[in-house]
Amino acid sequence: MKFSSKLLEEAMMAFHSLPGVGKKSALRMALHMMKKDPEYARKFSEAVWNARNKIRTCLRCCSYSDEELCSICADPRRDEHTVCIVESTRDVMAIEETNQYHGVYHVLGGVLSPIDGIGPAQLNIEALTRRLASEEIREMIMAINPTIEGETTIYYLSRQVQPFNIPVTVIARGVSFGGELEYADEMTLGRSILARTPYQIKSVT
Amino acid sequence: MKFSSKLLEEAMMAFHSLPGVGKKSALRMALHMMKKDPEYARKFSEAVWNARNKIRTCLRCCSYSDEELCSICADPRRDEHTVCIVESTRDVMAIEETNQYHGVYHVLGGVLSPIDGIGPAQLNIEALTRRLASEEIREMIMAINPTIEGETTIYYLSRQVQPFNIPVTVIARGVSFGGELEYADEMTLGRSILARTPYQIKSVT
Repeated sequence: MKFSSKLLEEAMMAFHSLPGVGKKSALRMALHMMKKDPEYARKFSEAVWNARNKIRTCLRCCSYSDEELCSICADPRRDEHTVCIVESTRDVMAIEETNQYHGVYHVLGGVLSPIDGIGPAQLNIEALTRRLASEEIREMIMAINPTIEGETTIYYLSRQVQPFNIPVTVIARGVSFGGELEYADEMTLGRSILARTPYQIKSVT
Repeated sequence: MKFSSKLLEEAMMAFHSLPGVGKKSALRMALHMMKKDPEYARKFSEAVWNARNKIRTCLRCCSYSDEELCSICADPRRDEHTVCIVESTRDVMAIEETNQYHGVYHVLGGVLSPIDGIGPAQLNIEALTRRLASEEIREMIMAINPTIEGETTIYYLSRQVQPFNIPVTVIARGVSFGGELEYADEMTLGRSILARTPYQIKSVT
């Protein structure tokens, strides 16, 4: 692309550096920004700047937070005896969206992946061990992606937890609600048969 | 979505306000920003801010520019007797990309569209009239989108140009190179037959 304005080109390149944004979309974003009022551009720049420089991680659960403790850890209504282990803050958000969980979280910041140079030291495992020793945890739920690295991480963590005698659970894996069996992958379908659960008659709510 | 960080939510909403960016993509962009070094965030914010506050329009051709005159108007190698009329700076960029045009431009900033309240006063037509009177223009090329509004604008402009006795041309319309006739729309195909041109034998370059 040839630009009559160097600044426009710089704005386009800035947007183009974002994940999933091609050059044409980036140009569209830059032109959109130019047509908006200055207050919009100021707020936009500020939000981006704050995201990088003001957001920190919760001292307890390592999730993204504006304060020392994130809003979940600081909420007295949450059951602090149940800890759900997740990979990222995005998973925290996904679980919160379900409204089915009322405990607290611990964000690992990834999964063990020796091939990518990610060992226990690269994850927030030390912080977790400190919590195991200092908090009264009664259940640890592994809500980690069911990949090979995820399974390895679950195995590693459950070994770490063993000395503390805390029950470890894993979120249910199986066929999706609303999904069709014929389209489920073999692994999921096979495991869902092996891990079948007793059927409970209950009224539909 | 539920956010553990208000600032993260604000960054997500900022990206979500851009054209063509959904909430999930916006969140991905915000998280991407957080993982980058502070210098990246600073440059990004600056580029966006500059796009809104420092880019102006060329005094002569009304294209986006960093200086009083845009790089094309300021280039002495351009043929300033040929003026190409386009809707937007994006069209200037598209034509520059072809490397086939060496004249200068005039950016209208849109097309006449009474239904949207866009009349001659809303477009950069006064600036064009001034150029017609003060510059020695020998050809005016209409490179305006072939829509109903575009055709109306071409008609209006050609009437404005008439007193100055300047030849007006329109960029060729017809079937696309590499396209297939059966997929061309009727209007384009029909007109391309009516507007057929003599075939010239020439060596393929």
